[in-house]
Amino acid sequence: MSDPIISLTTDFGEDSPYVAAMKGVILSINPAARLIDLSHQIPPQDVRHAAFFLAAAVPCFPADVLHLVVVDPGVGSDRALLYVLVNGHRLLVPDNGCWALLERSASGPPAVIRLAEPRYWRHPVSATFHGRDILAPVAGHLSRGVDPMTLGPVVSEWVRLEERPPTVARDRLVGEVVFVDHFGNLITNIPGEAFAVLAGRPVRITVGEHEVPRHVRTYADAEPGSLVALVSSMGTVEVAVAQGSAAQRLRADVGERVTLMVEGNA
Amino acid sequence: MSDPIISLTTDFGEDSPYVAAMKGVILSINPAARLIDLSHQIPPQDVRHAAFFLAAAVPCFPADVLHLVVVDPGVGSDRALLYVLVNGHRLLVPDNGCWALLERSASGPPAVIRLAEPRYWRHPVSATFHGRDILAPVAGHLSRGVDPMTLGPVVSEWVRLEERPPTVARDRLVGEVVFVDHFGNLITNIPGEAFAVLAGRPVRITVGEHEVPRHVRTYADAEPGSLVALVSSMGTVEVAVAQGSAAQRLRADVGERVTLMVEGNA
Amino acid sequence: MSDPIISLTTDFGEDSPYVAAMKGVILSINPAARLIDLSHQIPPQDVRHAAFFLAAAVPCFPADVLHLVVVDPGVGSDRALLYVLVNGHRLLVPDNGCWALLERSASGPPAVIRLAEPRYWRHPVSATFHGRDILAPVAGHLSRGVDPMTLGPVVSEWVRLEERPPTVARDRLVGEVVFVDHFGNLITNIPGEAFAVLAGRPVRITVGEHEVPRHVRTYADAEPGSLVALVSSMGTVEVAVAQGSAAQRLRADVGERVTLMVEGNA
Repeated sequence: MSDPIISLTTDFGEDSPYVAAMKGVILSINPAARLIDLSHQIPPQDVRHAAFFLAAAVPCFPADVLHLVVVDPGVGSDRALLYVLVNGHRLLVPDNGCWALLERSASGPPAVIRLAEPRYWRHPVSATFHGRDILAPVAGHLSRGVDPMTLGPVVSEWVRLEERPPTVARDRLVGEVVFVDHFGNLITNIPGEAFAVLAGRPVRITVGEHEVPRHVRTYADAEPGSLVALVSSMGTVEVAVAQGSAAQRLRADVGERVTLMVEGNA
Repeated sequence: MSDPIISLTTDFGEDSPYVAAMKGVILSINPAARLIDLSHQIPPQDVRHAAFFLAAAVPCFPADVLHLVVVDPGVGSDRALLYVLVNGHRLLVPDNGCWALLERSASGPPAVIRLAEPRYWRHPVSATFHGRDILAPVAGHLSRGVDPMTLGPVVSEWVRLEERPPTVARDRLVGEVVFVDHFGNLITNIPGEAFAVLAGRPVRITVGEHEVPRHVRTYADAEPGSLVALVSSMGTVEVAVAQGSAAQRLRADVGERVTLMVEGNA
Repeated sequence: MSDPIISLTTDFGEDSPYVAAMKGVILSINPAARLIDLSHQIPPQDVRHAAFFLAAAVPCFPADVLHLVVVDPGVGSDRALLYVLVNGHRLLVPDNGCWALLERSASGPPAVIRLAEPRYWRHPVSATFHGRDILAPVAGHLSRGVDPMTLGPVVSEWVRLEERPPTVARDRLVGEVVFVDHFGNLITNIPGEAFAVLAGRPVRITVGEHEVPRHVRTYADAEPGSLVALVSSMGTVEVAVAQGSAAQRLRADVGERVTLMVEGNA
């Protein structure tokens, strides 16, 4: 059997010593832990970005990886810290909805434990850095085989993420941009199947006030610089500029409205 | 026993091939070495930033980790390269003061060896990249069990970091910002105990010309967007904007003067 | 024997979940694989930057590391994906020339296999993310000992990188900037030996319209802030500002012409 794997996802950046401190704490408890960086570039305190990130990344991992997530605008408040088992994946997270999208696609209900057992923590616990003082040491102990049931009580309530699912009208589907990726591609919450359902019918796609002239199968089917819609690698409708940035071209961000409209059908 | 761990801290960024080259050199000498990235986003040639970073991160690690640090404005000069054992922690560093703050909090004197044994280096040694040609191969050899005493002579002189400790007057404590973190929090050199000592007395806190209206225990005790002082996770006074950036709000940077003044006490 | 090492080089950044997804896919196939990040900050779709990066980094690694490279503007087109064995180093790459500079310095011809065996892929294969769906799973299988010959047919044609070697005239050598590093140093394609050949003769060095007043052995031989030429850690002529950025000072980028001219020799 190989050594236990712990992944790290934070909004700490790398110019600050916070990620390094957490790695040190984990390795102090379990020197055999294998640390995998997922991201330290989650935008500061952007729980929604973290939720989307985790929904795209965590399901690709084998079940026994432990995912440590610190995007934690509520540090120091009475927000709980949680151990979560969802769809076979294990996470340590602040209770702020950052793991909510994993629950949505799960085949069964999650098991959730509130961290309440100080003997697994680093003392004194600071008021501003629970990633180092609570989550990292708990991750270290879990990776050494500590039973999650000893971490604290099972809970049945947790913070959820407000979501606005796309709306369907007779001739249109209205959704929004839910993620802007590193290339400036606009990922929406509209299922990619919409293209299949509408196949063969003339469809008008708009992002805010901007019309998207074509939909294609892949970036390579589009002229460099042209604006297109396609199915993203997450399976949802994406608006992209081939070899360019749709976010810059359309000055669009998360929350921008995206509409698929069947033409001549009104 | 698990495989030896080598951590890397540099100002190389990741767009350039320098970090990758160092990893390759280490693994060529010891394929079993486990590499842990601490940061490659130290601001270019900013030894003081590196010193603060290491002081916050290194003490969290177990003692047998080897910390390789390349923030080296003096590369190619006659500045020495050092193996340092300080408070149980092992580092390979340019002799420029980057490890100085670790010495300050150590329980005993450090042991320092100047790297002088070319048989542990990569040849030809370039004039501009001692990280790849000297520090990385020495790290590889150390991780295979080479005795540090064979690396070169023990030395008793090394570069120190100029520091201005906070000054204490009858009614005030005057320090400065020593680090600005990824969130724009201003970390000062004023011990957090100052709050305890002053407890119950009205204190006026200023950063440059700006008044900090409140001090709180943690970010969550402050309204989002409000300016507060608190004790940082490093134990010193910190000035922050809850869910925002104090550095941006106050246009403050490292070196900015911070004052704690007891009111009505003059 | 230690566990197999897979390195990752991408233009994905870390704010997006793409790198994390690839890591998950690899570990799902081989939980014992050791993942090493080389860079996720290759500028988007910049194949030439990737080629230079790999040429500087890959030769430093031991031969048995597997290098996974995803800088892939042609994803979804009929561009091939390749397994390459070049100078003892193993890579998985899109067929776009990103490994071309490794071939240039190789002692023999490379062996190249086109990935064509879907049983080693992740299904369904998306149209936009072959890094996750083809390259990562193939890397996982290779790291478990799959024979590269079973991945697909050996090919003898692949995309090369257009290069303009420096030109030599009677009194001058004309090259160009081929890489701008994290410090703003301008790396050229002019061999460092040029300095030796010209030793003792007065040489005028220009970058575009700007004259470079001195050449030195190393940054430390130059006054902070002064503009100098020297031999880079890659062995080619480099133009730098000591403790500053030559790219900013000269507003120079990749492609800028660099001339070494022997004076009084016309």
